[in-house]
Amino acid sequence: MPPLPLFTGLSAFPLTPADEAGRVDTDALQTLLARIVDSKARSIGLLGSTGTYMYLSRAERLRAVEAAVEGVAGRLPIIVGIGALRTDEAAQLARDAAGAGADALLLAPVSYTPLTQDEVFEHFATVAAATDLPLCIYNNPSTTHFVFGEDLIRRLAGLPRVMAVKMPLPKEMAFSTEIARLRSRTADDFAIGYSGDWGAAAALLAGADAWYSVVGGLFPKPAAALVEAAQSGDPAATARIDQSFAPLWALFQAHGSLRVIYAALNLLNLSQAAPPRPILPLDRTNLPEVEAAIAGLAGE
Amino acid sequence: MPPLPLFTGLSAFPLTPADEAGRVDTDALQTLLARIVDSKARSIGLLGSTGTYMYLSRAERLRAVEAAVEGVAGRLPIIVGIGALRTDEAAQLARDAAGAGADALLLAPVSYTPLTQDEVFEHFATVAAATDLPLCIYNNPSTTHFVFGEDLIRRLAGLPRVMAVKMPLPKEMAFSTEIARLRSRTADDFAIGYSGDWGAAAALLAGADAWYSVVGGLFPKPAAALVEAAQSGDPAATARIDQSFAPLWALFQAHGSLRVIYAALNLLNLSQAAPPRPILPLDRTNLPEVEAAIAGLAGE
Repeated sequence: MPPLPLFTGLSAFPLTPADEAGRVDTDALQTLLARIVDSKARSIGLLGSTGTYMYLSRAERLRAVEAAVEGVAGRLPIIVGIGALRTDEAAQLARDAAGAGADALLLAPVSYTPLTQDEVFEHFATVAAATDLPLCIYNNPSTTHFVFGEDLIRRLAGLPRVMAVKMPLPKEMAFSTEIARLRSRTADDFAIGYSGDWGAAAALLAGADAWYSVVGGLFPKPAAALVEAAQSGDPAATARIDQSFAPLWALFQAHGSLRVIYAALNLLNLSQAAPPRPILPLDRTNLPEVEAAIAGLAGE
Repeated sequence: MPPLPLFTGLSAFPLTPADEAGRVDTDALQTLLARIVDSKARSIGLLGSTGTYMYLSRAERLRAVEAAVEGVAGRLPIIVGIGALRTDEAAQLARDAAGAGADALLLAPVSYTPLTQDEVFEHFATVAAATDLPLCIYNNPSTTHFVFGEDLIRRLAGLPRVMAVKMPLPKEMAFSTEIARLRSRTADDFAIGYSGDWGAAAALLAGADAWYSVVGGLFPKPAAALVEAAQSGDPAATARIDQSFAPLWALFQAHGSLRVIYAALNLLNLSQAAPPRPILPLDRTNLPEVEAAIAGLAGE
């Protein structure tokens, strides 16, 4: 069996515009979602790291899911981030998302006290059992500081409903090597996708099933074009589109993708929302660079 | 001016016993606090990492502070951990603690999205201004993954009410070198203390003002004896007491101090509370080692 379609292709991760007190601007969120629906994205990654899920209350996370389900109206599947420090809270967030009409869940092992491999296994087993929705493992050590062993991914992939993994850019091996190792440890219907936007072209050309994309949340058309070029096996076209993103990747690496994508949101006049404090908006002196970077996007 | 007394000597960090749903057992907490009051500790570090502050709701954190203020009844100052991912939440927790009668605050730069030095500065400036209480910088990269530059500590120490820092064990220099560098950058009344229990003896002998201690939360008498020996300049007595803790330090390093100290709590029959999931209790097979380690504590 092939992977579930919603865990393949471009998964676009929008920001969650909110005011200073953390109240979600559902109109602005729906505006962002409409841009994604109007593209060739295969899914929406709502309340991912880019969607600042860890900075929003349970009530606001539910409001965001409800607004997304209403706005998208079934035209694209919605994968909802449900990470939380406590297992019972993550399970409750999963039930909230399922009850509001989400199509799938995305779970990161958010930590304060560093967690063991067994603790993360039990955490995922409990949360995956809380609903009937398919679940994607959110492997994001830059925010969670948890490192998944390959054996843990194998064990998790054997749990009911755990159908996909969102991997960070590999540090020690080529994409093709890592993907082959993961495929050898997981079933045929287990989907392997990548985040880390500047590595997406290489990951997709090496056979990744999906790109979980920050840039896709705001610029879904050129991001979907990149996926289409890579997954149809056209390295030259892929490189051309990737090249158009290069100034943005450089800014992501210098300032963090979240700060840059908020600046782009503001420059596009889609919302004047700022990131949640303590995260500060990008310094004004960097805005001309952001403006130039987004002006150069192919197909936007 | 010398540092504030409450930021010197032994600061004992108790667990916060709670049920599976995260409701604090205030009776069990008061039992732990009574042991600390009955020792030569100089302060209580309530709701530190050992007190699982990040796993408790705002309401439960307030209940813990209220129970502590009632139980301690002014016999020892109470320093309260107020860390949170959002700046507005940390400021609110600071106001809650101040309103309930806390004597000082302890603030860690808890992060999900990695923070910049400037973001942490602004975060601390806002939270320190939220109350009139003195504040200790909680520098704990093993849980927050934020690395304080020396210049940031200097800038923070210049803020009103920021009177102390709780440092992790240094990785790249001797305690004496690090303490001298920090003293050269901060005022005479700025207190420099250390956490990381197995380095406490060396830190105190090198002139640290305080030991912010996990073990002190459950075994305050031998921990206070270690501080007294070191701060009175008796390396032989310090080494003797430190040696009695050695089996416990080995267990802390192997399993994490939190899991071990919960096991010790249970073995002492002070509470059968477990750590908040996803953190799992220590495996039963390790309990005899914990039992042996705590049986050997001098003065307990």
